Amino acid sequence: MESNTPAPRQWDTRRRDKARRMAAASHLADGPVLDSERIVEALQLLLASGDRVVLEGNNQKQADFLARALVQVDPDRVNHLHMIMPSVSLPEHLDLFERGVASKLDFAYAGAQSLRISQFLQEGQLQVGALHTYIELYARLYVDLTPNVVMVAGYKADRQGNLYTGPSTEDTPALVEAAAFRDGIVIAQVNEIVDDPKDLPRVDIPGAWIDYVVRSDKPFYIEPLFTRDPRLIKPVHILMAMMAIRGVYERHQVQSLNHGIGFNTAAIELLLPTYGERLGLKGKICRNWTLNPHPTLIPAIESGWVDSVHCFGAELGMERYTAARPDVFFIGRDGSMRSNRALCQLAGQYAVDLFIGSTLQMDGLGNSSTVTHGRLTGFGGAPNMGHDPHGRRHPTPAWLDLVQTDDPLARGKKLVVQMVETFQDGSQPTIVESLDAVDVGKASGMPLAPVMIYGDDVTHVLTEEGIAYLYKAQSLEERKAMLAAVAGVTPIGLRHDPAQTARMRAQGLIALPEDIGVRRADATRSLLAAKSIAELVDWSGGLYEPPAKFRSW
Amino acid sequence: MESNTPAPRQWDTRRRDKARRMAAASHLADGPVLDSERIVEALQLLLASGDRVVLEGNNQKQADFLARALVQVDPDRVNHLHMIMPSVSLPEHLDLFERGVASKLDFAYAGAQSLRISQFLQEGQLQVGALHTYIELYARLYVDLTPNVVMVAGYKADRQGNLYTGPSTEDTPALVEAAAFRDGIVIAQVNEIVDDPKDLPRVDIPGAWIDYVVRSDKPFYIEPLFTRDPRLIKPVHILMAMMAIRGVYERHQVQSLNHGIGFNTAAIELLLPTYGERLGLKGKICRNWTLNPHPTLIPAIESGWVDSVHCFGAELGMERYTAARPDVFFIGRDGSMRSNRALCQLAGQYAVDLFIGSTLQMDGLGNSSTVTHGRLTGFGGAPNMGHDPHGRRHPTPAWLDLVQTDDPLARGKKLVVQMVETFQDGSQPTIVESLDAVDVGKASGMPLAPVMIYGDDVTHVLTEEGIAYLYKAQSLEERKAMLAAVAGVTPIGLRHDPAQTARMRAQGLIALPEDIGVRRADATRSLLAAKSIAELVDWSGGLYEPPAKFRSW
Repeated sequence: MESNTPAPRQWDTRRRDKARRMAAASHLADGPVLDSERIVEALQLLLASGDRVVLEGNNQKQADFLARALVQVDPDRVNHLHMIMPSVSLPEHLDLFERGVASKLDFAYAGAQSLRISQFLQEGQLQVGALHTYIELYARLYVDLTPNVVMVAGYKADRQGNLYTGPSTEDTPALVEAAAFRDGIVIAQVNEIVDDPKDLPRVDIPGAWIDYVVRSDKPFYIEPLFTRDPRLIKPVHILMAMMAIRGVYERHQVQSLNHGIGFNTAAIELLLPTYGERLGLKGKICRNWTLNPHPTLIPAIESGWVDSVHCFGAELGMERYTAARPDVFFIGRDGSMRSNRALCQLAGQYAVDLFIGSTLQMDGLGNSSTVTHGRLTGFGGAPNMGHDPHGRRHPTPAWLDLVQTDDPLARGKKLVVQMVETFQDGSQPTIVESLDAVDVGKASGMPLAPVMIYGDDVTHVLTEEGIAYLYKAQSLEERKAMLAAVAGVTPIGLRHDPAQTARMRAQGLIALPEDIGVRRADATRSLLAAKSIAELVDWSGGLYEPPAKFRSW
Repeated sequence: MESNTPAPRQWDTRRRDKARRMAAASHLADGPVLDSERIVEALQLLLASGDRVVLEGNNQKQADFLARALVQVDPDRVNHLHMIMPSVSLPEHLDLFERGVASKLDFAYAGAQSLRISQFLQEGQLQVGALHTYIELYARLYVDLTPNVVMVAGYKADRQGNLYTGPSTEDTPALVEAAAFRDGIVIAQVNEIVDDPKDLPRVDIPGAWIDYVVRSDKPFYIEPLFTRDPRLIKPVHILMAMMAIRGVYERHQVQSLNHGIGFNTAAIELLLPTYGERLGLKGKICRNWTLNPHPTLIPAIESGWVDSVHCFGAELGMERYTAARPDVFFIGRDGSMRSNRALCQLAGQYAVDLFIGSTLQMDGLGNSSTVTHGRLTGFGGAPNMGHDPHGRRHPTPAWLDLVQTDDPLARGKKLVVQMVETFQDGSQPTIVESLDAVDVGKASGMPLAPVMIYGDDVTHVLTEEGIAYLYKAQSLEERKAMLAAVAGVTPIGLRHDPAQTARMRAQGLIALPEDIGVRRADATRSLLAAKSIAELVDWSGGLYEPPAKFRSW
């Protein structure tokens, strides 16, 4: 043994620090139950300047009571917080930076706040650590971003801190575990605290992992992010959905899949019981799903297309419907759904045949991003769902169908389909020479341009013009030509040499609608299994209860 | 709305089926507590032929009592089970197939049973679904392999089914959740059932997720898989470890990392407090770890090298040591460690700079496998840890250091280092013309050769001859030449043109030990911070309690 015996070291500094903070706040709590009225005071005692703080901001569920309280702490006492948030969704999330409480942000997704993040970044009011994917952000909580404090939301808790997150479990377990097992402080806001543990429908997170529960002044905010009103589905969406079903799903025998948000994919969901049924595809494709409980999936479920759906999160209004379909959804013994974003992301990454999604911009090589000038959106789960995991994977018929060589070490591919109209509303081309993201990255001094999905991961590009089977490209040049051939009259599309089209069609590198038996004239709204939210409610037998903003009756 | 209203359908067939089975076994249980003496009878009532059954089989922890019971069920009553097992470790796991109870196997890793699996496969006694990675296997439990029954192991449970898995949490939460929330039956064997819930150290899995607990006849078996006796570390391991520290860790400023099992990586761990310290690298490299609590990491921890360690599982004998180092390890409020293989795999995949591991065979392109003729091992977590996740990732200095172009969309790479001696013991070359795995795959009719790590994911190959910086290769030919240059006198190495060596050294494509300041003569065992298990115990202040087979005193 070497003689340089180390100096005595204290090995429980985190534990002591936590105990010190909790002792300071002990007069504000009864067991783990914090006094709601004095939450700001409590946070001032439980947080220290420079802390790494996870604030749940998810895609749907928001720990909004805690966010509003955190904004009110005295920035002279608590400042330079390093916020770690899956989703930056509420104004309060950025008010923290304006008020000088927080200074650094690591996040995965920003919807409504994307303009303001971009502005704060330019003004130097906020420093961005990195734009993560969801599972990457969770992963870092266990490596180099272990949090000091984690603030989450649940429906109910008992007085021992046992937490019921119900259908909206989402990111909560992955966030809580990182602090609960490394002497961080876990605070959960809940809509209700029950006296008797038996009054909890079930325990989603054990009380031993939660330090404090606090009753919020009103139920946590939840965003119905995945509800698409069928009335807004246009014929072009239907055309593209028909092409997806024939030219991708049927062709490759896609069994398991993830759909992103969007009217294109909503159209696919609504065509399965009509167009898909007529093609005799029921039971042959689209059986196992990883996605939120999209209301537009109801007709396919009711028609017997869907074996299973595992969900990232809940969807507002779908609670009773999912609970009544336990063969399909993941439901607890208490009868309510359980979601889990970390596991569903894993499932979408490693267990499915196909991801299909959309984007705001794509370049001629298929690189895409939703970051455009002035909008720093982040990408949430898209980069993970929308990439072909390298390394080893189990084969499925669809995955194997993309093998292009007879090399004994050849691998298949996960199908990564980008489904884009060539132009956005307002006549902005979707397919562009260079992504805005490249400029944004440079201007913001990012070491890495904020690309969402890299072109080399994209196997299919589907536009209203046709499908480019990019996985068949033998060279970068051919790849470009294939994409250009379906890029319409965008700058990239105009570069296309029409003489090549016939050759590429003949070789199966691209397909126009007629090549896959899709008639443009058939693409009408009459094909939709439901044409309105009201019809979705009908399909569900009244179990789907859409939020007010989606009701027209 | 379409007129083809679906026929009435029952939506809770799984729930009814579960209730029926549980009613049939109700006389064998007191609440969730199953009668240990009648476990075989209970399994015969709770399982049905053709069920998908998860049997925990992990890397370390084994639900061995349940495995022994399952082997005893009457194959006329229960047969054709489809077993899903992270790790096939015990003879009983394969006896199931010999006895005709099970017929299909999906798994991720097989250590001691790899020869027998191979034999059973050839004899048609067993059908393999696929060789998965761990997280891929968990993922499929939520998509197309949802289990009917899940059998796991824990230390303690109370009479409400609350489960304490303690330091050996491993795969359990990911396995249980898939059944608990889809009307599967969850059975946990435990070493002890406590009457008062307060006597559980903590709850790792809530009782509402567990249907049955049963006291095992003896404590569950746990394999000390990650203990490497420093006495078996040879000078060549030390040489290679020095090269790794200088030529990879120092060069790329590796902060966060995963080490595989092996004497090479154990040597690295034991050189940090000596060789690493003299190089002034403490605090600059190797701060955040994702790995099991390797005893050989104790000297580095005690010397202050290590900020954090998140663990896949526990390591036998390390319980008291990890509990006494809560600043470093993930420890619950009760004072014992929590591991979590799913989260640690994610962390190792997305949050670390580097994976370094070894293999039994590697071909001239860097493809590798531990499957050789007659041995179907599976690969556990290696293919996930040992690949560069595509899609978006946060940048770190090490990751960015591997960018090779000034393309604005250029990405860095996770460092995937293969550290192999050119020959195995017994003079079998490690670096070969063609992997045995290719033949094995063909002979077994697998759609995919059982490759562990694909060459295109490998950034560095490190042998006793030198380091090939494969990420710098501009072509496949150059890649081959670089690998051949460090392949010694293997068939691949002999193909190497020595005239190229000087050029490749000058260009920094390869490095010999002297190029990175490593003197072969310095590579002696005197550099090891601990030279025996006894010295590891000393470093730990007596907290490490090695299993008997590692004690020589």
